[in-house]
Amino acid sequence: MSTQAERLARFAAELRFDAIPAPVVRFTENLLVDWFGSTVGGQGARPVQSIARFVQTMGPADGASEIVARGRGSSPWGAAMANAAASHVAEQDDVHNGAVFHPATVVFPPALAVAQAVGASGRQLIAACVAGYEVGIRVGEFLGRSHYKVFHTTGTAGTLAAAAATGSLLGLDGARMRHAFGSAGTQSAGLWEFLRTAADSKQLHTAHAAGAGLMAAYLAQDGFTGAADIFTGAQGMAAGMSHDADPARLTDGLGERWATAETSFKWHASCRHTHPAADALLAVVRQHGLQPGDIAQVVAHVHQGALDVLGPVVDPRTVHQSKFSMGTVLALVAQFGHAGLTEFEREYRSAPTQALRERVSMVLDPEVDAAYPRRWIGKVTVTTTDGRSLHGRVDEPKGDPGNTLTRDEIAAKALRLAAYSGTVAPADLQRALDRLWQVADWPRTPWLLERA
Amino acid sequence: MSTQAERLARFAAELRFDAIPAPVVRFTENLLVDWFGSTVGGQGARPVQSIARFVQTMGPADGASEIVARGRGSSPWGAAMANAAASHVAEQDDVHNGAVFHPATVVFPPALAVAQAVGASGRQLIAACVAGYEVGIRVGEFLGRSHYKVFHTTGTAGTLAAAAATGSLLGLDGARMRHAFGSAGTQSAGLWEFLRTAADSKQLHTAHAAGAGLMAAYLAQDGFTGAADIFTGAQGMAAGMSHDADPARLTDGLGERWATAETSFKWHASCRHTHPAADALLAVVRQHGLQPGDIAQVVAHVHQGALDVLGPVVDPRTVHQSKFSMGTVLALVAQFGHAGLTEFEREYRSAPTQALRERVSMVLDPEVDAAYPRRWIGKVTVTTTDGRSLHGRVDEPKGDPGNTLTRDEIAAKALRLAAYSGTVAPADLQRALDRLWQVADWPRTPWLLERA
Repeated sequence: MSTQAERLARFAAELRFDAIPAPVVRFTENLLVDWFGSTVGGQGARPVQSIARFVQTMGPADGASEIVARGRGSSPWGAAMANAAASHVAEQDDVHNGAVFHPATVVFPPALAVAQAVGASGRQLIAACVAGYEVGIRVGEFLGRSHYKVFHTTGTAGTLAAAAATGSLLGLDGARMRHAFGSAGTQSAGLWEFLRTAADSKQLHTAHAAGAGLMAAYLAQDGFTGAADIFTGAQGMAAGMSHDADPARLTDGLGERWATAETSFKWHASCRHTHPAADALLAVVRQHGLQPGDIAQVVAHVHQGALDVLGPVVDPRTVHQSKFSMGTVLALVAQFGHAGLTEFEREYRSAPTQALRERVSMVLDPEVDAAYPRRWIGKVTVTTTDGRSLHGRVDEPKGDPGNTLTRDEIAAKALRLAAYSGTVAPADLQRALDRLWQVADWPRTPWLLERA
Repeated sequence: MSTQAERLARFAAELRFDAIPAPVVRFTENLLVDWFGSTVGGQGARPVQSIARFVQTMGPADGASEIVARGRGSSPWGAAMANAAASHVAEQDDVHNGAVFHPATVVFPPALAVAQAVGASGRQLIAACVAGYEVGIRVGEFLGRSHYKVFHTTGTAGTLAAAAATGSLLGLDGARMRHAFGSAGTQSAGLWEFLRTAADSKQLHTAHAAGAGLMAAYLAQDGFTGAADIFTGAQGMAAGMSHDADPARLTDGLGERWATAETSFKWHASCRHTHPAADALLAVVRQHGLQPGDIAQVVAHVHQGALDVLGPVVDPRTVHQSKFSMGTVLALVAQFGHAGLTEFEREYRSAPTQALRERVSMVLDPEVDAAYPRRWIGKVTVTTTDGRSLHGRVDEPKGDPGNTLTRDEIAAKALRLAAYSGTVAPADLQRALDRLWQVADWPRTPWLLERA
């Protein structure tokens, strides 16, 4: 049976803090803090509240695992579900470009919930999270572009990431981790169809991935078995959900290549597919000192995945849907220099935004498409009202590994997200951030905020 | 957007007991009793106990919804998960031939759990279960044969069936039911890969379908939205998981054709794909008075789906795996006239069984394959040790609608299953059966067995 599944499972099971290079540990701390900001920022959203209510109705009334910013606990399953829903709604959580996969929102929620429940140290928590990132990213890369055309990779590969992180904290050996992968992969799900009507499924996908992956690991701990080769088997994930799966990606550079540290932070509060063009437009606007009124037309030169995901969104009716509208994002950037939560909330359907939105189109660009998903190149052509044709380009959008955020920028982003949601007082949030930066020294994983 | 999704959702939301023809109600009562037997029979199985432990660890310590034969309650989610796992493990639960879908195990568990929690009447419960059957069967038919090659339709279509049954009991209107369908379909999962190593995933698939479908309906009740067209949308279920989906099947004869009553009861305790050949062999054995030692070779003439599911099982190592071994099933039938739980448990690897197993092969039969999945024709050719070539054929295996079980046979089967599992005393089981036959008169859905 699959050497890949076996090797990947053994790696996830055996990864220890001391084996992780210090820069990767520091980077993981950054990812954790960035995730925390997104979680706090998302807690007030209606779909997130629905999922939190569901787990509180179905789960215990309280528990050892924190539902962040709600001051209440739940079982590990309930907290993982609620926090995973919360951290993906603001579209501010991290992304791995090559895998087109958002790791934080499916890794940290189950890892934190289980670490709190079992009393794991901060170093065990970090090792578990890195295991989750390394596994989830490789599964996303393995499933390939054809998968992403229909499936939300964060939901599908996310079940494996959640299983790896949970399994690490539960002390699964390689054989049981492989069973956990089998049980996770056979629950793997998440379809893009919801985008067409701006439905709430994105939060359900991350919650489901976190909950199903966590369950897979708990079951494996109890001796429950899963497919030996859920990835490349004749009736496995690739057979069912991909036409271009690449098995070699599953174990690519295991233990040497740290995919975790390739993760990008999001700067704009929109779908990542809009960011390269947004930064390219920003470059043009700044270089030429353009005002919104100077812009007659913008053509964004994009990869096919951007057309697949953003293409159907032609008339966004909600804030969330507008984050998948290239026209809206570029219109906000042209007006405000940044497409943040506040800009979306206040301006996504303003008359100037809609007027600019109508002047934006997308075309498939062979160079951009060939580089994707390894590199997310941004290219725009702006036609000005006085007839000039201006070209903008960025090779790494802000937040990518070569253009990453500083710790100050990450903390500031978290504070902005908390302020936006209004669920946590700034002083409480600052205390939580101070605590989070010390994660590697925690003897026992604490709650991040206080109980109500 | 899809008229099919809208119509199917409205049908499920608006179906009331009084609209269901009396024979279909009676048939549904038979299905309920048959399901109860399978649930009791499965509770002792190791993978089922793992899932029950998981929901009890993660859920409340007790609750209004009964975990059958455990004497304890849970939340609706927890009880639905645990009972769905239990009712599919003995391979004795019902099946709809055309959909290649096992409805009972994904419909009754969420319906019973929710009916107990909300205090629904027996008639409301029946209407909800019929809604679940009608929806799940049509979704299975819609997804088609290509889907079943890789996906376990009971896991995938099962999420929709569970959502329909739950949504009916929660009183969702058509619009919210459609949202529930969107949320259910985007969690739809279940891969056959586990068969290759006889892993425990089958129980996970039914538990997952019940839990995810139930969650989808509760979320919809709370205003959570899902894709408008999860079935035929460009990035929906068919796009991701089928090559031969037939949208017309989704609403085929809604309200006139009662797919519920087309469901088959299982007589042998094995994968349904083995039953036609088993009954055909039995016909030959009886007609010609053959002893096991008279059989030199058996060729089972089968449909492609049987080859896909049973083909990989060449050397069954567990009782469960042997239920997917055509050779083992025919060997048991040749020896004992029936492949029941006891025969499997005691004889699946006996020397005579293994010797007979080696003399069985399968070949694709054009007539059988063309009729499938509407009709499951059984054909075998037996070569005797004295050189005769004997042909056996059944057009409807025992338990199919045209050859269905009597109420006495259903009750006897339930009692056998309970005796096999040893979890419920015969007198307690008989009391439960007496209560179950009266379902249409329940003012409030009670527990089926007593609390511990």
